[in-house]
This record gives sequence, C-alpha cells and structure tokens, in this order.
Amino acid sequence: MRSLRAVVYGVGAMGSIIARLMLEKGVEIVGAVARSPQKVGRDLGEVASLGFATGVIVESDARRALEAGADIAVVSLASYLSVMFDHFKLCLEHGANVVTIEEESIYPWGSAPELAARLDRIAKENGVSIAASGAQDVFWMNLVSTLAGASHRIDAVSGRCTWNADDYGPEVAKHVHVGNTPEEFERHVAEHGWPDFVTRSTLEALVADVGLTAESVKTAVVPVLAEADTPSRGLDRVISRGRVLGVVDSATIATREGPTFSFEMAGSVYGPGETDVNEWTIWGEPDLHLRNDRVPTRLITCTSVVNRIPDVINAEPGFVTLDRLPKPRYRALPLGHYVS
Amino acid sequence: MRSLRAVVYGVGAMGSIIARLMLEKGVEIVGAVARSPQKVGRDLGEVASLGFATGVIVESDARRALEAGADIAVVSLASYLSVMFDHFKLCLEHGANVVTIEEESIYPWGSAPELAARLDRIAKENGVSIAASGAQDVFWMNLVSTLAGASHRIDAVSGRCTWNADDYGPEVAKHVHVGNTPEEFERHVAEHGWPDFVTRSTLEALVADVGLTAESVKTAVVPVLAEADTPSRGLDRVISRGRVLGVVDSATIATREGPTFSFEMAGSVYGPGETDVNEWTIWGEPDLHLRNDRVPTRLITCTSVVNRIPDVINAEPGFVTLDRLPKPRYRALPLGHYVS
Repeated sequence: MRSLRAVVYGVGAMGSIIARLMLEKGVEIVGAVARSPQKVGRDLGEVASLGFATGVIVESDARRALEAGADIAVVSLASYLSVMFDHFKLCLEHGANVVTIEEESIYPWGSAPELAARLDRIAKENGVSIAASGAQDVFWMNLVSTLAGASHRIDAVSGRCTWNADDYGPEVAKHVHVGNTPEEFERHVAEHGWPDFVTRSTLEALVADVGLTAESVKTAVVPVLAEADTPSRGLDRVISRGRVLGVVDSATIATREGPTFSFEMAGSVYGPGETDVNEWTIWGEPDLHLRNDRVPTRLITCTSVVNRIPDVINAEPGFVTLDRLPKPRYRALPLGHYVS
Repeated sequence: MRSLRAVVYGVGAMGSIIARLMLEKGVEIVGAVARSPQKVGRDLGEVASLGFATGVIVESDARRALEAGADIAVVSLASYLSVMFDHFKLCLEHGANVVTIEEESIYPWGSAPELAARLDRIAKENGVSIAASGAQDVFWMNLVSTLAGASHRIDAVSGRCTWNADDYGPEVAKHVHVGNTPEEFERHVAEHGWPDFVTRSTLEALVADVGLTAESVKTAVVPVLAEADTPSRGLDRVISRGRVLGVVDSATIATREGPTFSFEMAGSVYGPGETDVNEWTIWGEPDLHLRNDRVPTRLITCTSVVNRIPDVINAEPGFVTLDRLPKPRYRALPLGHYVS
C-alpha cells in the first residue's frame, strides 16, 4: 500500500473538513495554502479546528507548499474555472493531481471549453489528472444515472435539490446575493448576466453519463425572497423580510437523442426545520423516482471529494470529467490502499 | 455494430416482458423455450402477448432452441441455483452467455458455492459468462453502494423493500405461501426450513460491492397475515382473513471490517393503494438516506436484465457476481451497440 501525500489548497469551511477526513483516511498532509492573513503562519490543525497540531504551517505561497511533492492537491478556494485556472495550472505543473470542489470543473467542456482544453494539455504534459467532485458526484449524477440503468425508455429527466446558503461560508452566501434587495439582484443580473453555476455543469455531466449528447442548454435564475426576517449564520446578520435569501438556479438540456433533462437547485438561507432534499424523476418506461431526505450537503461535498482521491490519481492523465470517473466507492481502508 | 441473437428461456410473466423489451432494443430472438404444453408449438408473439407474430415457435426442447446459436440466453424460469443448474449448464455448453433473474445467482458464493464453482468452470471452458440481474441490480445494490460513495465511515446499513406477490405469476405466489394458513406455513418452515431467498444473495452482493467482507449471515422469515379478505390476482382467488398473504424475508450480515448490513423484504399480496417502496439508510458519518417510491418492481426486474445483456457478453468468461458487473447503464441505442 502506498502512503499518499496531499496539499490542502484552501483552508476555508470546506477545506478544513477535507483536511480532517483525509487525515482520518491515512493521507499525509504535506502542505496547506490559504490567502487570509488570519490563517497564514498558523498550524493547519489550529486553522482547521482539528483539535491537534499537524506540524503543517499554512502558507500563502502555493508554490512552496507544492514543492514538498504531493500526489494530490485538494483545491477548495472559489467557484468558476476562470477564477481557478492559475491555481489548477500551478498544481499540475508541480506534478500534483488535482481534485477540486470547483463546480464548473465537474464538466467544463460546455461553459469553459478553452480553459478546460488548456488544463487538459498541461495535465497530460505533466502525467497527472484533474477532476472535480462534490454533491454532484453521488447525489446529482451517479444516483440518477444508476437509476437510469433500470430505464427501458427515457422521455425526460427532472431533478430538484435544496442547499443551505448558510453552510458554505460568506463567499458562497454573497455569491447567491444573500441580504441584497430584489432590485439589487435584478440590476446585477441585468448588468452582468448570471454565470452558469452548478446546474449546467452537473446536468451536462449527467447527460454524458446516461450516454446521451447535449444539443442545447438553457439556464435561468430567480431570487428566493425572505417572507420573514431570517437570521443568516453565514453572514452573521438578520436578512430582512423582502430581501434575497438565495437563488434558484436551473438548467435545461435538450439532447440529440430526444430526452430533455432539467435540474433546479434552490440555494438559500433556511428557515427553522428546513433540511436539504434531493429528488429526481425519470419519465419514460417506466417512470422512476428517487429521493434523498436530510442530505448533509456540506459534509458529503467533502466526503465525496476525499473518496475520489484514489480515482483521480489512478485516472489517465488529463481533464477527467465526472462521468468518466468510475462508480463512487466507500473507502473502508486508508486511501493509499486504492491506488493502483 | 453487432446484431445480437438471443434465446428467451422461459416465457412466463417475466420472460414475456423481457421478449418485448429485447425486440424493442434491436435484439434478434432466435429461440424460445417453455415447459407448459399451452405454450409449446405457438408463436412467441402470441404466447408473450406481443400483438404480432415473431416467426419464433416456442419449444420445449431447449437444446434445439440453443442450436440456432445465440449470443445470450435470457433465463427466467424458477428460483434457486440447484433448480436452475442444468438449464444454465446447457446454455453455457452451447456457447451462449447467460443472464437470469434467478435470485441466488446474484451472488451464489455464500449459499451455493459448489454449484457456482461448477458453472464458473463450465462458463470459462466455453468462453462465456453467466450473471444475474433484476430489482437487486439498480435498486437494492447499485443505488446503495453508490450512496456509500459519499460515506466517510459506515457503522451499519439497513434496507427495506416491498414487492407485490401478485405481480410474478402463481409460481412465486405459491413460493411465498399465499393462501396457506399460518399453521401450514409454520409447519412447513419447521419441517423443511426456509431456503435463503433473495435477501441473502442481495446483501452478500451489496457487502462485496461496498468493498467489505461478509463474516456471518443470519436469515429469518415471518409470515404476513391478511387482516381482511384480500383478493389475489396471482392466484385468482380471495385470501381469507388470517391466512398468509406473503412473507417478510430478512438477512443480516456481520462484516469483518465492522459494519452490519440488514435487508428486509416484504413480499405479499397488496391491499388497495399499496405500492412498492425501496428505502435504505447508511448509518455512520454522515447518516445517508435513500428512498424510491412507486417502484415498478416487476418491470424494472425485466428492464434491468435486458440492459445488462451487453455487460454479460462483454464480461470475462466465468460466473460474474453482480458486484463485478460495471455500473448499470441506460441503453439509448440497440443493445449490439454496447458490445465490444
């Protein structure tokens, strides 16, 4: 069994959980990278609230962290491939495989094909791979494509999930306009458009995984407004009635083969008692239904990424979209056990 | 693309559906085998209520049907590997791969290891494979093991499903003692024991697919009694209050690695409004939940088998347990397209 060496690239809400999960799965953390001056220079164990010192000092210079020599860089920093491109490139050029929760990287060939092609080439030149995982992996793609394994004929696929905008730190809460007025939100969308968020890349991966070909993609966004004053943990303040609690992102894909796929993702600050739900129907012969209640979306984003580490290391070099990774697996043993 | 040639081996409730699904997926049916004198000598289209003649005459001599030369024999005849052994052997010796809904063949190494080893050898000698599919495939194994791909730590796995004992013809209804008195049922179990039915092989396949090792298996059966007079479509008579409507089969497996797996399967004649449900929880970090409502168990048993045909033909020769088949897939194209 190989012992795996990892760099934790981004030590925010998600990176901190990922660090713990990796250590519990026998991964050696050889470096940690963060931007915030409050984190840099401190022990990873302290920054990630692990309850013990790791001996790894968080640093701002990713280059130095990567020079320790890592099998894998686990990158959880920000959304969008354009924002993350230089970070991914740096990791790959240092000979580290990359697994990330960056959402576009699930299936970037639709929304960011040129950046994906460049990273694919850089990965191949360095003999490593890059792939993304997260809640998309098990819940929004593999459970659904597995369910489709019982379909004789698919007419349409529709999915809906909810996630709590308070669970991912202030970056994400601000990204979905929590606390803004509806006018601010509409003005922002009118001026800047609304970048394709999770739904498009998720649905493109799902269509590919079901063995079909996307022909056209439509995306839409509408705000979720507070019906009562609602406290936001993520922003640590109360969102007044009438203000934005989050957004419903949706994507619809028409396929060359006929079936239409749609996915609606409601990310907002929850009221009391709300939990994450994931629900899909495959319409056809026969109609098939799938539902996950009380999905711990934040935690399974992290567990999915960590469980994928062996698959990304084992993959052929290049940009590996989620549909091209093997079936997700539980890892009973230290992760090095699963590396071929 | 190859055109696939199949023998429909068993033209009962399930074989009839399977025949239609195969024809709709571009499979050429070159033979059909049945035992009943009411079926033998008639066109498969008539026997299977396809609404058209196929030109294939149902015959009782399996040998003659197999001599047409088939890529695959789709066998849906009876339960238990001991009952089906000679039929499977005959197919394999004629160079036909076998896919079956026979439940023990999902994972026969626990309950029928010697028969499985003999068939494994015969399959290898003839360069073909044998595997089973059915509702186990997507709903009771792959959805659950895929869900486990989001688990960091598994403490226990428990599942429960229901199926309608009226949906599978009189063979199956009698097998689960529909219409007997509780005393008849208890006497039968006391005298003959209760053979491991679906739960054991399903759970053994699941444990293997999650990457764990079964250490000990317990099975149990209790009758489901009618609380009111209940009409049985399968037996075409009314089951009186207090008589057996079916059984709850359960299995529990302790694994070497720690987690306990249990699966409870309630197969009984339904009252009004009841539908098939499939529900699983993975206890651990985190707890994960999965539920399928309105499962068309009978139909997905057939669609799953048909969608597996390419995988069984592509498999390495031998007895291929369900956990060793690739992820279930939707087949948008004629099945020959997926044969490598």
